[in-house]
Amino acid sequence: MSEVLEIGKRAKAAAAGLAAASSARKSEALERIAAALIERADQILIANTDDVTRAQEEGVTGALIDRLMLTPGRIEAMAQALRDLIGLKDPVGEVLEGWTLPNGVHIDKVRVPLGVVGIIYEARPNVTVDAAGLCLKSGNACILRGSRSAISSNIVLARIIDEAASSAGLPPGSVQLIPSTDRESAKELMRMRDFVDVLIPRGGADLIRAVVEESTVPVIETGVGNCHIYVDESADFDKAVGIIVNAKTQRPGVCNAAESMLVHRAVAAEFLPRALAELHARGVEIRGDETVRGIDSAAVAATEDDWRAEFLDLILAVKVVDSLDEAIAHVNRYGTHHSDAIVTQDYSAARTFTLRVDSACVMVNASTRFSDGGEFGFGAEIGISNQKLHARGPMALPELTSYKYVVTGEGQVRA
Amino acid sequence: MSEVLEIGKRAKAAAAGLAAASSARKSEALERIAAALIERADQILIANTDDVTRAQEEGVTGALIDRLMLTPGRIEAMAQALRDLIGLKDPVGEVLEGWTLPNGVHIDKVRVPLGVVGIIYEARPNVTVDAAGLCLKSGNACILRGSRSAISSNIVLARIIDEAASSAGLPPGSVQLIPSTDRESAKELMRMRDFVDVLIPRGGADLIRAVVEESTVPVIETGVGNCHIYVDESADFDKAVGIIVNAKTQRPGVCNAAESMLVHRAVAAEFLPRALAELHARGVEIRGDETVRGIDSAAVAATEDDWRAEFLDLILAVKVVDSLDEAIAHVNRYGTHHSDAIVTQDYSAARTFTLRVDSACVMVNASTRFSDGGEFGFGAEIGISNQKLHARGPMALPELTSYKYVVTGEGQVRA
Repeated sequence: MSEVLEIGKRAKAAAAGLAAASSARKSEALERIAAALIERADQILIANTDDVTRAQEEGVTGALIDRLMLTPGRIEAMAQALRDLIGLKDPVGEVLEGWTLPNGVHIDKVRVPLGVVGIIYEARPNVTVDAAGLCLKSGNACILRGSRSAISSNIVLARIIDEAASSAGLPPGSVQLIPSTDRESAKELMRMRDFVDVLIPRGGADLIRAVVEESTVPVIETGVGNCHIYVDESADFDKAVGIIVNAKTQRPGVCNAAESMLVHRAVAAEFLPRALAELHARGVEIRGDETVRGIDSAAVAATEDDWRAEFLDLILAVKVVDSLDEAIAHVNRYGTHHSDAIVTQDYSAARTFTLRVDSACVMVNASTRFSDGGEFGFGAEIGISNQKLHARGPMALPELTSYKYVVTGEGQVRA
Repeated sequence: MSEVLEIGKRAKAAAAGLAAASSARKSEALERIAAALIERADQILIANTDDVTRAQEEGVTGALIDRLMLTPGRIEAMAQALRDLIGLKDPVGEVLEGWTLPNGVHIDKVRVPLGVVGIIYEARPNVTVDAAGLCLKSGNACILRGSRSAISSNIVLARIIDEAASSAGLPPGSVQLIPSTDRESAKELMRMRDFVDVLIPRGGADLIRAVVEESTVPVIETGVGNCHIYVDESADFDKAVGIIVNAKTQRPGVCNAAESMLVHRAVAAEFLPRALAELHARGVEIRGDETVRGIDSAAVAATEDDWRAEFLDLILAVKVVDSLDEAIAHVNRYGTHHSDAIVTQDYSAARTFTLRVDSACVMVNASTRFSDGGEFGFGAEIGISNQKLHARGPMALPELTSYKYVVTGEGQVRA
């Protein structure tokens, strides 16, 4: 039996025990994992130094090294994130609906864990701890498949987590990492329908596309965000400038940052100079259509690709549109159905935009940066779903669950 | 552009209009479709005669012909099913949750259609009407891909439906049938992620497996049911006999019929002679383990395959188990996670069984035959999901929806 298959079988067995584990036991496990991370921080840092050194030898620099690197402070933050999970409501066992049939049979729709959750992710070792914690809290076993660059850190982290969870009475194998980082191990994970209930890829667009293409296990597609801000003709300019500056520049490298701005033609000449000055002052490169370039001599010509791009950088595609309808059509055509905002003071425009824009989060007079599990008040986030099946938008603990119908009677049969 | 791709594009365009269609307009469309089916019954019956004649010439007989054949009465029943949908609650627009953040931003989680639903199905032409009606009511465009055997009937039905829906003001292309029934057209449908939001296969185990294997569009796996009745040592024998007879014989060809019975060893000698006599009297073949064969000389030896089988026939696999734990382990190992029942008077046994059996529907002292959208009171059913993602168990209108977050503010930005 292959290593990945063995991991799958162990996870499935662990999932049965985890589904029946009490909240108290899961909280105890999270607390023990947090304590073990702090206690064994030296071990984690040594492994992480291996990863960082190897990356540097391979010529990796800057932000990528920063994403890979752990420090005592970052380890403490990972432990704290686990402790924060303890305070959240356990989704398992919640009765979503319940009713009694005319014949006296009673039905309860009860939240249960998904079972085994596979996570395929890149670079950052804190995902190992985050994902494991969210899965345990929601009663799921998890199989982690991280990147080669963080493999030493991930192996140590996963071992610490699984040992600490077992010491609290959770089944061994509740958290497992696939130690091999070759393509074959990922492919095998993607084909293990008998042992894995859902796969969540977390990373760049290429990774997500590959998983969607190859997986026979159900996938939740996450994270690619070409988010739009549409400035309507009735927009309050102060609000509009505040929102576009926030959405574009507050943290440009994340999926809920704005990548495109659409401006109604009626206000373009008045609004754009002011907005673009604020953006240029913050180092934003503007890629605009002809009208935009007529107003802003610093703007470069936007290509068809720019309307589709997730820049994840201080670049903004800007287009002037003739109508609300054109704005909505542009968002639905070029966007990634993640988070899109209108800035307007017009009641009907707000209503039409929220009804017709086909995105997980549709904002009115608010920054797309709010599209986030933490900001939404979920207390946690496993990712942001770009698909409509199962979960859409920010996903937290309830999105890591399914349900079952519990049907109780006194001998009733079907007539 | 291929025919299937064109159908996909049209469906996507129609979906945008359908998502914004009012309930009143959708009801008008359902009523017009119902009326058109009755009015154009002759046309439907002529096409259906083509299908039936062709099937007979190819040597098809019995139940398969019956499934394929339409009559004026059956057409009226299809029309009535559409009219019944009008009375059901429109799921679109329901606010599932709503809350306000500390900064005054308000969030509503609002139910929206999935978008474009693809249905791949076998034989019965009434599925064409059922599926189209459920999709329209829930604001989804649908692409139907039926079997070769019913193609003439399906083409006429789909044309009548789409024309009647358009006449009520719904977008043309809301309901489309793929006229080609070769493998390539199905494969193309399964790869159209840009135009199809979910695929629901309805048919036998082979069809469902093929769709799950090949589709890159998210799939909801439906319908295969190896359902168990476990008779606990504390069972009320009258209830147990009533339930197993009902679950096995009331309609053996459906997915929620029982295929296996497990009996606790402590009551096997007393219970089995009585239960098996009732089953034999109704023509049920018993495939048993050694203990069962020791009690029932008419029983044949059960093979490993029999524990896994969905017989869909008057055949029952029967096994004697030593404990509740063994029963639960057997159900989770050999079952299809569809619907499984315990018959017991013991409080803890009932609680343990419902907690630990990993099935969409877990019954206590009730027949597995209740696992059905109609019986559950949903008023309709598009299928019974065997998977945990998105929807589990009987699926009706809400299961054909997703949701979006509508986030409204007064210019708030993220700090």
